[in-house]
Amino acid sequence: MPCAGATDWPNPMTASGEEQFIAEHLAPLTRGIPSAFDLRDDCAEWTLLPGHSLVVKTDPIVEGVHFFSEDTPEDLAWKALAVNVSDLVAKAARPVAYLMALTLPARPQDNWMRRFASGLSDAQQAFGCVLVGGDTDQRDGPLSIAITMLGETPSDGMIRRQGARVGDLVYVSGELGGAALGLNLRRDADFHGGVVSERDRAAALARYLRPAPKLGIRAALRAAARSAMDISDGLVKDLDRMCRLTGVGAELELASLPLAAGVRSIFTSNVDEGLRLASAGDDYEVLATVPESEGRRFERLAGKGGVRVTCIGRIVSSPGVRMAGLSADNVAKMTGYDHFDKNTGG
Amino acid sequence: MPCAGATDWPNPMTASGEEQFIAEHLAPLTRGIPSAFDLRDDCAEWTLLPGHSLVVKTDPIVEGVHFFSEDTPEDLAWKALAVNVSDLVAKAARPVAYLMALTLPARPQDNWMRRFASGLSDAQQAFGCVLVGGDTDQRDGPLSIAITMLGETPSDGMIRRQGARVGDLVYVSGELGGAALGLNLRRDADFHGGVVSERDRAAALARYLRPAPKLGIRAALRAAARSAMDISDGLVKDLDRMCRLTGVGAELELASLPLAAGVRSIFTSNVDEGLRLASAGDDYEVLATVPESEGRRFERLAGKGGVRVTCIGRIVSSPGVRMAGLSADNVAKMTGYDHFDKNTGG
Repeated sequence: MPCAGATDWPNPMTASGEEQFIAEHLAPLTRGIPSAFDLRDDCAEWTLLPGHSLVVKTDPIVEGVHFFSEDTPEDLAWKALAVNVSDLVAKAARPVAYLMALTLPARPQDNWMRRFASGLSDAQQAFGCVLVGGDTDQRDGPLSIAITMLGETPSDGMIRRQGARVGDLVYVSGELGGAALGLNLRRDADFHGGVVSERDRAAALARYLRPAPKLGIRAALRAAARSAMDISDGLVKDLDRMCRLTGVGAELELASLPLAAGVRSIFTSNVDEGLRLASAGDDYEVLATVPESEGRRFERLAGKGGVRVTCIGRIVSSPGVRMAGLSADNVAKMTGYDHFDKNTGG
Repeated sequence: MPCAGATDWPNPMTASGEEQFIAEHLAPLTRGIPSAFDLRDDCAEWTLLPGHSLVVKTDPIVEGVHFFSEDTPEDLAWKALAVNVSDLVAKAARPVAYLMALTLPARPQDNWMRRFASGLSDAQQAFGCVLVGGDTDQRDGPLSIAITMLGETPSDGMIRRQGARVGDLVYVSGELGGAALGLNLRRDADFHGGVVSERDRAAALARYLRPAPKLGIRAALRAAARSAMDISDGLVKDLDRMCRLTGVGAELELASLPLAAGVRSIFTSNVDEGLRLASAGDDYEVLATVPESEGRRFERLAGKGGVRVTCIGRIVSSPGVRMAGLSADNVAKMTGYDHFDKNTGG
């Protein structure tokens, strides 16, 4: 893997030191809230709303693993926040603040850093959180942005991954496979070139760069979901994880999967490839199980929050994820991403 | 910088997947507390004690920057936790839980991972915290261990970096310069060879590998300190940061600096070098300012907590850090570490 930033962040540097760098580029992202002490203290102090618990998550994104060296600073900033917000949203928690450990291969140029901070600012505003602390280091190696996201939830109100029961409906938000198609297009611009329209290609590329956490689904989850998680490693793999926690399985309807438009085009001409994309990961959609009696309410509340949810199947007693009309082999092709499989970009 | 782990973590790997890896090596570190959900959920949920605030900090340690490739897994684990606990302690907060983002250059051998987890287990027990979440990734590049430490403090009870007033006494815990001497010995085993005794060399090497956060100082800070921080980038640099927040300065007594034994030996033969080591960073001692009327009480309470504190000077109105008996040039040599200065090991 190439050492990052050789062209983006040339020596000699223009900024005069770590403190000035923080004061200039990062401190404005605190929006002046007292908890952050203008990033001039060693720690942040956060007071939760009465009767609330902290929900917390850390997930780094690393150059060459989660993004490409040529991605724009604005897109990196968005993705770094979005992948963590996505986790909190699926727990029905409200993202409120974050810490950022930025590990850079060289001191960044002012222009790069301004654009990165501007991307963070946009993402913060979209997700409703502010920067409260962090750390900046320089070392040889890929650029790494490690966000720790703090969220709040009414005490013991976190929707857990564990909880799926036989008979529950399985829901997914938004669309599947778009980000995976975008990733494949980044690696090979001609990927299924004759099949996917220009417009769908553009949408897939955008989806890979800018995951869209479904903040509007939280009320629906809190009111009606038995279990939930976000889909980061792929539909089948993540659903299987959910099911195994309560010793159940799932039967999905292939026809009901809400495929991204480009993925649907590929699926029509090449079922295997369409399935692989639909469950390859990076969707950052919410997967939830809902008691059958609560299905309509779940859909209505999600809709009120501006989020489309689709019932894609049902929880069953027999372990494993099956799909009506597909062989076990075909389902096995949908197993998704393992962070220990060497897989640039996944 | 060499790509880490080529010898420590050879392919092919023995563990069968990310989940098994987490279940086997990391889940036991949660000690079964409900907040961590056995590391099988996407987030951790933490409920603070009533009337308490969260104090939070993230600080990664990176191979080639904060530790050497040949350091043992047990020592890395200790240091990764200690540098974050140190920050919380200086805020008078109680460390309670942590998240860990582990970025590995290859899937670790079971034996390495067992030793690393055993080191975390020892450090957890020493510092009073448990693992509640995190993330594991693999990519080319140096090993990185990013801990986010969660602590609790009575609401608005965090001792801040800002607050030093003219007339305050300046205190430091423990000893200065040992870790910096250890780092220099790691780079050059003959460093001041004729001057530092074998015993003092061993102590310095141990101090570099295993910072010792002063957990016992928290009651003293809470009762008597006006401002505090931990010394990670060097005494003069960090004290100057503290002072600038309230527009004050400090006058220190050279003779009162609690130098580590090996550093004192060097100082005796080479004042400049002794001074440089005394303020080079990595001490992870607590620096505090205390109203003069509270000095005795501060010392007594720290002593009750098993922590030796030394009064090294006083806050004055004139900005900057001066040292009685030293020229400004000599003090300038004590400016410590900047994370944007290329500086392996600092």
